[in-house]
Amino acid sequence: MKTNSGNFFEDYRLGQVIEHAVPRTVSGGERALYHALYPARHALHSSDAFAQSCGLAQSPLDDLITFHIVFGKTVPDISLNAVANLGYAEGRFLQPVYAGDSLTSKSQVIGLKENSNGKSGVVYVRTQGSNQNGDVVLDYVRWVMVRKNNLDAAAPETVIPYLAKVIAPDDLAIPQGLTFANYPTTLAGEPHLWGDYEIGEVIDHVDGVTIEEAEHMMATRLWQNTAKVHFDATFRDDGQRLIYGGHVISMARALSFNGLANAQMIAGINAGAHANPCFSGTTIRAWSEVLDKAETASPDIGALRLRLVATSAAGTAGQLRDEAGKYLPHVLLDLDYWTLMPR
Amino acid sequence: MKTNSGNFFEDYRLGQVIEHAVPRTVSGGERALYHALYPARHALHSSDAFAQSCGLAQSPLDDLITFHIVFGKTVPDISLNAVANLGYAEGRFLQPVYAGDSLTSKSQVIGLKENSNGKSGVVYVRTQGSNQNGDVVLDYVRWVMVRKNNLDAAAPETVIPYLAKVIAPDDLAIPQGLTFANYPTTLAGEPHLWGDYEIGEVIDHVDGVTIEEAEHMMATRLWQNTAKVHFDATFRDDGQRLIYGGHVISMARALSFNGLANAQMIAGINAGAHANPCFSGTTIRAWSEVLDKAETASPDIGALRLRLVATSAAGTAGQLRDEAGKYLPHVLLDLDYWTLMPR
Amino acid sequence: MKTNSGNFFEDYRLGQVIEHAVPRTVSGGERALYHALYPARHALHSSDAFAQSCGLAQSPLDDLITFHIVFGKTVPDISLNAVANLGYAEGRFLQPVYAGDSLTSKSQVIGLKENSNGKSGVVYVRTQGSNQNGDVVLDYVRWVMVRKNNLDAAAPETVIPYLAKVIAPDDLAIPQGLTFANYPTTLAGEPHLWGDYEIGEVIDHVDGVTIEEAEHMMATRLWQNTAKVHFDATFRDDGQRLIYGGHVISMARALSFNGLANAQMIAGINAGAHANPCFSGTTIRAWSEVLDKAETASPDIGALRLRLVATSAAGTAGQLRDEAGKYLPHVLLDLDYWTLMPR
Repeated sequence: MKTNSGNFFEDYRLGQVIEHAVPRTVSGGERALYHALYPARHALHSSDAFAQSCGLAQSPLDDLITFHIVFGKTVPDISLNAVANLGYAEGRFLQPVYAGDSLTSKSQVIGLKENSNGKSGVVYVRTQGSNQNGDVVLDYVRWVMVRKNNLDAAAPETVIPYLAKVIAPDDLAIPQGLTFANYPTTLAGEPHLWGDYEIGEVIDHVDGVTIEEAEHMMATRLWQNTAKVHFDATFRDDGQRLIYGGHVISMARALSFNGLANAQMIAGINAGAHANPCFSGTTIRAWSEVLDKAETASPDIGALRLRLVATSAAGTAGQLRDEAGKYLPHVLLDLDYWTLMPR
Repeated sequence: MKTNSGNFFEDYRLGQVIEHAVPRTVSGGERALYHALYPARHALHSSDAFAQSCGLAQSPLDDLITFHIVFGKTVPDISLNAVANLGYAEGRFLQPVYAGDSLTSKSQVIGLKENSNGKSGVVYVRTQGSNQNGDVVLDYVRWVMVRKNNLDAAAPETVIPYLAKVIAPDDLAIPQGLTFANYPTTLAGEPHLWGDYEIGEVIDHVDGVTIEEAEHMMATRLWQNTAKVHFDATFRDDGQRLIYGGHVISMARALSFNGLANAQMIAGINAGAHANPCFSGTTIRAWSEVLDKAETASPDIGALRLRLVATSAAGTAGQLRDEAGKYLPHVLLDLDYWTLMPR
Repeated sequence: MKTNSGNFFEDYRLGQVIEHAVPRTVSGGERALYHALYPARHALHSSDAFAQSCGLAQSPLDDLITFHIVFGKTVPDISLNAVANLGYAEGRFLQPVYAGDSLTSKSQVIGLKENSNGKSGVVYVRTQGSNQNGDVVLDYVRWVMVRKNNLDAAAPETVIPYLAKVIAPDDLAIPQGLTFANYPTTLAGEPHLWGDYEIGEVIDHVDGVTIEEAEHMMATRLWQNTAKVHFDATFRDDGQRLIYGGHVISMARALSFNGLANAQMIAGINAGAHANPCFSGTTIRAWSEVLDKAETASPDIGALRLRLVATSAAGTAGQLRDEAGKYLPHVLLDLDYWTLMPR
């Protein structure tokens, strides 16, 4: 058979390196589409002139474009037969991506654990996206539950990798040349800088966006993500197309501009959970909680650790889990990430 | 509170200058999206080779892209608490915008008038969009009715600015280098030049486009317009998303190609009214009326003043108002503008 | 009347040359939109670095972008009053199109045959798309049935052009510089090269995509195709918008990546039929049949002749016609084309 049926749990080997297919050159087209699909307004990612006033040669693409492209390439090899996307850790954005860059993606299997039912197992991969110069632009770990095809295949030795719960602030990469010393606050859209945020503070981002099928499919296709469940209305019994979790991440991050306009760059992803599925017709809202603050090596750049929550219900900022610790039904996403902002 | 709740009527001061946030660099991506979202076919905005034959270095972006981007930036500061968008005047396109340009937008309050009910007032602003060289690319006035938040705030002195009903032809800017001396009429798509149009002539543009939610939201987001009513289906009691008036302008202008293919550039906006709201599912049609003609300083460029009407009903070209002078229910837009075309 | 009512059968003359309007410059924007609208993944059209490893200066746009743009320009002159699009032949892609190229399109009438009912006739045109250097990038023949407006107009002499059933492999153009000598198979996504395919082999491409109105309209507009039936829900009695046949071609070709990832370029179109109409809500699937194989002048490039079938029913790979030779109701497209792939 010439079509790709994807890998099953028994196909993975500890230490195995998978070079993912279909490299991609990005341009102003990807940027414009990102701005059409999400209400993205962070000025550093919108204007060359603004980016130049922050020491960069031009405006880098939104960091989540990098994430989606690098992630999308892994789907045919890692998650075509996945039952669930279980988590993310140690995500570090190591270098901005600019129009004209060509990205490739590769993963290494760093952990394996067969489930006790013998029908599936958890695969841990560390994925790296690189540009045309061979520089790594993004490095992250995710783990997924994958079905076994051959139920008789022997279970591999269980190896669960050590993963940092939170990236140490010193390990966050500051893009070369980036400075907020002459930061044009008015053009950025809000006056609140790093010093104005307090740990524990919750910000309701107020705005909502109702999602359409055409939009989430266009976004997901743009990242060359091939998971059938996002595109084929006959795939699920209920006739619904499941929205790619990354679409919800980008929507929530864009909505968070209203209250976090100066959280210009994403430097790290500590953890993430797609708490409940999202379907077309949902009106997505977002709120953030300040989890931590840290100085960086640069005197004018601070790091803010945020919990970004996407929700399908208005007026629920701050409400995450029920008494049993389970995500509330209206919570779509719980993302723990580091941003860089002017100090 | 860190989120933007917008300005209320009592927040504005006569003479106040507001520098709008989120500058934007445009590329071929915005151009391609414009052509995907609207049936735009004016050759000057479609082909570098065509534009070069008209004396320009390359094809400028559609003039309405400039309008939408400059306008979109004003929304968080001017119309977030607007009850109604009342009018436009003295809109002049002063310089074409090209892929690679970075645009900013700023407004000055030039008039204020509290309503007699004491609950709202009219704010007049002159908005200027500029490129990375500081050249003004667009200058226009609009006035909006804005709610008061503090009903006890004292009314400002009433100042209603003098606004020209029509831009004098001599005040229209002819882009530097533009010439229609060797105009490739066949490539442009129609034989009718400036001399072929008569004042009073009505043109039914014949074609219709049925509007989808995904399309108007993508367009409106692309201009970084943040008005909730366009995106959030829970915002209005009827569950409908109001379509950004500028989406209707662009759709009607694009449809007007059929009959006005040589009206290549928009040079001025004299007046405009969004006569009735527009929602998804509407099939938009358009007709034009020639309001005036004028020569320009260039012997091969003529100015044509047009009324562009968008309508939701077929076969109603020329029907604008009822006997009482009220817009007919199927009229969506009444725009009075100047175009430049070969003489 | 200033609007274009299109040509009728009696307006065409044998040998007549029609220069089509609205030239177009393409950019990374068209490429990004193509990837957002279709699950296109052929690496040569995705990455500059990949294309450079195949001897090209940069990544060319997907060949079907060229087809759609050249075709779209012909619609106002050729098929505005068409009753049916009857066929394609002798389509040859003569040169890749790159971001920055400006395309024009012209057609010559090479055949005419009035129908016996005297109400319509068949028009054969050879269409050529050219770039800004005057190089022909695509040359193809199509024939359409066009209505007569003046039923009293005399029938023209019947001329039916000789058209090759299949383009001879020697007549396929190999882009200058193209080499698959150092082909990066892993990055391309599949191991199967030219030698691995057998004549008669049928490949079920497995994936399905459910189509939305917004998507097919955006695609069709992007190619500046003006046929009313694709955009105006009031045009047909059933209130449905007919999907542009080219949208189905691009969707099927993109789906065929899964099983034909190395069929990098389209070199020729031998024949094509839009077997049944397609509407929004359809889940499109695709299968291919290997019709022929040929060597080319290049030792590392093989030509594969494929039948590409788009279908609205899952699990029907290989099922094309009923016993009477009629296309089965779920067959949307039957396209016979040549691709170039590594040998």
